Amino acid sequence: MHAMPPSSSSNPVPRQIPPGIHAARDYERAARSCIPEPTYAYLAGGAGEDVTLEANRAAYADWSVYPRLLRDLRTGHSRLKLQGQELPHPILLAPLAYQQLVHPGGELETARGADAAGAGLLCSSLSSFSLEQIAEVASPRRWFQLYLQPRREDSLDLLRRAEAAGYQAIVLTLDAAVQQPSRRALEAGFRLPADCVAANLRGYAPPAPAGLAPDQSRVFQGLMNEAPRWADLDWLLADSRLPIWVKGVSHPEDARALKARGVAGLVVSNHGGRSLDGAPASLRALPAVRAAVGPDYPLLFDGGIRSGGDAFKALALGANAVLIGRLQVYALAVAGALGVAHLIKLLREELEVCMAMAGCASLAELGPACLCPATSGPTGNFTEAAC
Amino acid sequence: MHAMPPSSSSNPVPRQIPPGIHAARDYERAARSCIPEPTYAYLAGGAGEDVTLEANRAAYADWSVYPRLLRDLRTGHSRLKLQGQELPHPILLAPLAYQQLVHPGGELETARGADAAGAGLLCSSLSSFSLEQIAEVASPRRWFQLYLQPRREDSLDLLRRAEAAGYQAIVLTLDAAVQQPSRRALEAGFRLPADCVAANLRGYAPPAPAGLAPDQSRVFQGLMNEAPRWADLDWLLADSRLPIWVKGVSHPEDARALKARGVAGLVVSNHGGRSLDGAPASLRALPAVRAAVGPDYPLLFDGGIRSGGDAFKALALGANAVLIGRLQVYALAVAGALGVAHLIKLLREELEVCMAMAGCASLAELGPACLCPATSGPTGNFTEAAC
Amino acid sequence: MHAMPPSSSSNPVPRQIPPGIHAARDYERAARSCIPEPTYAYLAGGAGEDVTLEANRAAYADWSVYPRLLRDLRTGHSRLKLQGQELPHPILLAPLAYQQLVHPGGELETARGADAAGAGLLCSSLSSFSLEQIAEVASPRRWFQLYLQPRREDSLDLLRRAEAAGYQAIVLTLDAAVQQPSRRALEAGFRLPADCVAANLRGYAPPAPAGLAPDQSRVFQGLMNEAPRWADLDWLLADSRLPIWVKGVSHPEDARALKARGVAGLVVSNHGGRSLDGAPASLRALPAVRAAVGPDYPLLFDGGIRSGGDAFKALALGANAVLIGRLQVYALAVAGALGVAHLIKLLREELEVCMAMAGCASLAELGPACLCPATSGPTGNFTEAAC
Amino acid sequence: MHAMPPSSSSNPVPRQIPPGIHAARDYERAARSCIPEPTYAYLAGGAGEDVTLEANRAAYADWSVYPRLLRDLRTGHSRLKLQGQELPHPILLAPLAYQQLVHPGGELETARGADAAGAGLLCSSLSSFSLEQIAEVASPRRWFQLYLQPRREDSLDLLRRAEAAGYQAIVLTLDAAVQQPSRRALEAGFRLPADCVAANLRGYAPPAPAGLAPDQSRVFQGLMNEAPRWADLDWLLADSRLPIWVKGVSHPEDARALKARGVAGLVVSNHGGRSLDGAPASLRALPAVRAAVGPDYPLLFDGGIRSGGDAFKALALGANAVLIGRLQVYALAVAGALGVAHLIKLLREELEVCMAMAGCASLAELGPACLCPATSGPTGNFTEAAC
Repeated sequence: MHAMPPSSSSNPVPRQIPPGIHAARDYERAARSCIPEPTYAYLAGGAGEDVTLEANRAAYADWSVYPRLLRDLRTGHSRLKLQGQELPHPILLAPLAYQQLVHPGGELETARGADAAGAGLLCSSLSSFSLEQIAEVASPRRWFQLYLQPRREDSLDLLRRAEAAGYQAIVLTLDAAVQQPSRRALEAGFRLPADCVAANLRGYAPPAPAGLAPDQSRVFQGLMNEAPRWADLDWLLADSRLPIWVKGVSHPEDARALKARGVAGLVVSNHGGRSLDGAPASLRALPAVRAAVGPDYPLLFDGGIRSGGDAFKALALGANAVLIGRLQVYALAVAGALGVAHLIKLLREELEVCMAMAGCASLAELGPACLCPATSGPTGNFTEAAC
Repeated sequence: MHAMPPSSSSNPVPRQIPPGIHAARDYERAARSCIPEPTYAYLAGGAGEDVTLEANRAAYADWSVYPRLLRDLRTGHSRLKLQGQELPHPILLAPLAYQQLVHPGGELETARGADAAGAGLLCSSLSSFSLEQIAEVASPRRWFQLYLQPRREDSLDLLRRAEAAGYQAIVLTLDAAVQQPSRRALEAGFRLPADCVAANLRGYAPPAPAGLAPDQSRVFQGLMNEAPRWADLDWLLADSRLPIWVKGVSHPEDARALKARGVAGLVVSNHGGRSLDGAPASLRALPAVRAAVGPDYPLLFDGGIRSGGDAFKALALGANAVLIGRLQVYALAVAGALGVAHLIKLLREELEVCMAMAGCASLAELGPACLCPATSGPTGNFTEAAC
Repeated sequence: MHAMPPSSSSNPVPRQIPPGIHAARDYERAARSCIPEPTYAYLAGGAGEDVTLEANRAAYADWSVYPRLLRDLRTGHSRLKLQGQELPHPILLAPLAYQQLVHPGGELETARGADAAGAGLLCSSLSSFSLEQIAEVASPRRWFQLYLQPRREDSLDLLRRAEAAGYQAIVLTLDAAVQQPSRRALEAGFRLPADCVAANLRGYAPPAPAGLAPDQSRVFQGLMNEAPRWADLDWLLADSRLPIWVKGVSHPEDARALKARGVAGLVVSNHGGRSLDGAPASLRALPAVRAAVGPDYPLLFDGGIRSGGDAFKALALGANAVLIGRLQVYALAVAGALGVAHLIKLLREELEVCMAMAGCASLAELGPACLCPATSGPTGNFTEAAC
Repeated sequence: MHAMPPSSSSNPVPRQIPPGIHAARDYERAARSCIPEPTYAYLAGGAGEDVTLEANRAAYADWSVYPRLLRDLRTGHSRLKLQGQELPHPILLAPLAYQQLVHPGGELETARGADAAGAGLLCSSLSSFSLEQIAEVASPRRWFQLYLQPRREDSLDLLRRAEAAGYQAIVLTLDAAVQQPSRRALEAGFRLPADCVAANLRGYAPPAPAGLAPDQSRVFQGLMNEAPRWADLDWLLADSRLPIWVKGVSHPEDARALKARGVAGLVVSNHGGRSLDGAPASLRALPAVRAAVGPDYPLLFDGGIRSGGDAFKALALGANAVLIGRLQVYALAVAGALGVAHLIKLLREELEVCMAMAGCASLAELGPACLCPATSGPTGNFTEAAC
């Protein structure tokens, strides 16, 4: 029952890793020659002027990693337990919409690559293939990312389908009620191809037209009319048989309130800089969220990771595991399932090299003490505590 | 009684929004092809080396906006009450001189655009059309910006005319007693065209020649001889039937003294970087002024705003509403009244999107807690309070 | 008895201010076309890699100037009393060596320009014309800068000649015992022309050759053998009929010790970045020196001033007056005495404009409260005290 | 018994200092024309993206050096006692592998240059010539850098050979258990030539192939299986007749533990940025290490030094002496032994000039009080303590 590739994807199907991929981040450059420019602009760009997109990337440079010496790391590993499952490493794939934009096999290829490399997979509501199709080829380490639908019965249907298809958790995305358009995508002239559709949502009701009075706000009475509210979350928590996670948290008070409401875990994220341009860099928001929820509450993280060293910093600042967004779709474009698996393997090894150099035999040993401010200037540098 | 367009404006009259205006800031770029270069240099440049001009812009990058989740914003709005009037949103038009430089309809077009988009209008003493002409086409949300004239009777005449023409308040500009020339305008060879005159001031006395003794200072005994002093303000406060605001405040002690003197409200401003090159960025000066006058005293703000997100930050840091300067005249140059109205609509929607993402249902909910330092480095980032 | 111009200067004698000089700093650019490149490199460059040279310039951007409103400045002025003399403004000319490099009239032109513009003049030990020749054309506001000579009797002779020629104070330069060569001058191939000599030092003994043993240091046993020491200062203080100032102070402990020793005043300076590459920017060193010597002790300042606004900041941070170095010789190259006088006039007016905008009616009102940090980021900005 | 130059080096043998070497750092530029690009990329590059490499360099700009006045420095010197030996100055040569890559005489030339200039020499385990060959031409100020070998008996053999050949100390490198590949070297296509071998290690066992099970980590169960551990250090300390130093320390807790274990001294180093990309700049790590081990424990330092001024800062922040890495091999490439000797002489004089300007008559007078933060912005600058 696999769908034919839609005509919007004219790329030939890649079959091998091209030369010159020395590190995970190299998939970014390699993808530029595989993806038509408007599509690349859409994928690579962020909301508005890319302020948050660039802040996400720049935040890693705030921190150095302290090398440690002589520790016995022969039994070291990067395994973790998450939502009741054992994962071989903390590199997960973020939910990314419309993956047929870059590869005819779309999310099916991605799922195969994730399975081969042992990576947990978050499947998007807006996937090119249906969640059931993806479930057929994905490993059991799969979660379903949910956008609430205009009609509650459609949201419930999605939920039941995800339960039935063996997804292990629901990840409710909350940071995209409004999205500022991307200047980069606008200027590149990107438009979603007509045959690029959200396979999961066929037959569901589209958003109702706003029908505003002259003195009403297109934002508040228009767009925000459909936005999820606390009551929607309560309904979902009550009706779901799967644990509910929330994706898109930056503020510590939101984190605390969500935890208190019964949410199983959070994803600290600003939607990869694609939502509110001007939101804090994910990595800068992370420590305050960790402080708000306490040391034992599960936190995932995404935002700008391009290397295992970046992942190390996020894990040290409070994340239990990290999600890979853009690099995932770049690797998919470059070499399909093989590229995705290779990307994950590179990230994992880069992370483990960093752990080994930092003297950490397991993820539990990562923490702020592994890091040192890289850019705070000379003041106070004379005392041990300062660095 | 509308004047013919002066010959100094050779632009054709624009009739529609050109393509490529995705956001308010796009009017800046679009205007470059509509305005002769020397005039553009004069409008775009600041005093001296543009140090304050650039600081005004750069200050917005100091802050991030915290996204908040799940709040019910269906009754949200950006209305406010200002000087006894209800405004649909906090975007006002700053007083800008000589608008016929860029459009034959000048301030009349601007006033029509402001009216269409519900924006309060501050009319300049140095307008190309008279305050009475502007009043004919402007909405009731109009205030008059006053420069004190060399002869007190001329100032009084201006004041009475503004009262008679239905302006709601007087905004006395105090930060331009001396203005450093703009290097950019000098190098571009800009000179005010001979037919570009201040319509309001016809018949008033020009400044008297200084007539300095050899040991006198051209600055202190020359230029400052005409500069407004506390006694002039007291006279104005006593004689005016309209509330008196002061524009051009940066220092908190001035703010406190002006409030104590009976001034109705302040505009935190450095004249768009056109006055003292080296003055603090408006946005950096704003919090201290708000702290000095207390939470309930009315503060307007201008300086470098190019987007609704910039406006959000100024409102969060203490402004009740914001004034738009250069963008206003750029939109006027690009598309006349239509451009001005479109600019205001874009700014308002950008602001409301930012409010919605930040979880704010009204302007009263904006405050410093909506923001997070964007650039202060990693130190102290481990605690919730730090970000 | 005026010497003929040495052949090393091939510039035609300039007679008027060229167009395009809008501000004091414009003399820097204008000079590039008047001065042969190797000579320009020598004048413009600093020690080593120009680290301190650039830091001197960059430090002004750390500070903004607070505009103040409505003050009565009609009796304002920038006069000061320094070393018993009344000066019309606080712009002085720094001692600069070998001014015939850029103009055949050399220091004589400079002295005439200084006199015309009311500027105090510090005459260099290494002037192209003798101190007596300069005294003939200079105003009484002249001081003599002294380098101690290898033989004490030669130093004493210089001292007596300066006393006899009507100089008002001796300024002993102490920060140039060793000077790192300038990479810029080396790469431009600059060499001092053979006919470019220190007119004051004819007949004095040159430094003795070092004659080092193999295990001796060319620095310590070589160069530092001739360097001034505390005993030399004590001798000078005892033997001089003129007040002794010291030039080249950066460290507050040196400042305190020099004051205690009986020195009449200090020049905070790092030799315009020409001595130790890596020394702190003069402006950064100034506040600590002022704190060390107390509010009433006379401090001059130089380092990177290019405008009256720069001068304002140095005066606000603790200097009583400022010295102008490179700009002086640029103006000399561009337009001789006329250029020097014009430069001083521009600087004075720029300073007085800044004073007027900052609400200061006299130099005594300048202080740190006139300034506001320009670049310290957003933290703490919510309180009035922070900006 | 000197080996013939291997064919991998095609450079002609340099015989003199080329023009344009004004300062130590000039050897870097001069070397670019002497070394084939791939080899230069390998030498100049660091691990990964060169983040730590660039941080090493940039850290010197955080500090200014305070000039001091009038001190008597005629008996000044830069001598020191280190590991029981008298050294004429604190410039040592870091252990650098495979020096025949740039000069057929390789480490023999370097040793001759070091001897001529009185510099201590750290000989690498991975030298192109054997430690015995180098000992024949080196001065007694030679130490041996040790990499532990896969078989303990081989490590012991190396140790005994170093003892027999008159090396004065063993420097055990611990920060290179894993090394991230250099992007720069990869992209330049550098490969170690087949005839470029570690002369000291002929006949020793190579690392055993890892032989990993599918669920084992190539990092932890692979590479880290051979990495040195505390027990290896204890064995070495017990069996060595020479003092054992450790190279590659960044974290103060490692420093404290190594001192407590009986290590004779440490080298604060991140392997010149060639090991963990993202490690703190050496200069930023140094003060905390000094604070951890107390004032009297011997610390060497390397990382990014390009001038005597850089060396001054490292010495002031806690190092007893400094190691020169890349500049050493650049000077070797440019002018063989003569270049190495000249480089050391330049560095020493640059250091002594800096000492003289800072008023320090001996290394014991260097300390944090000689420095002043260069970049921490204006806040707090009004008090003496702040700068």
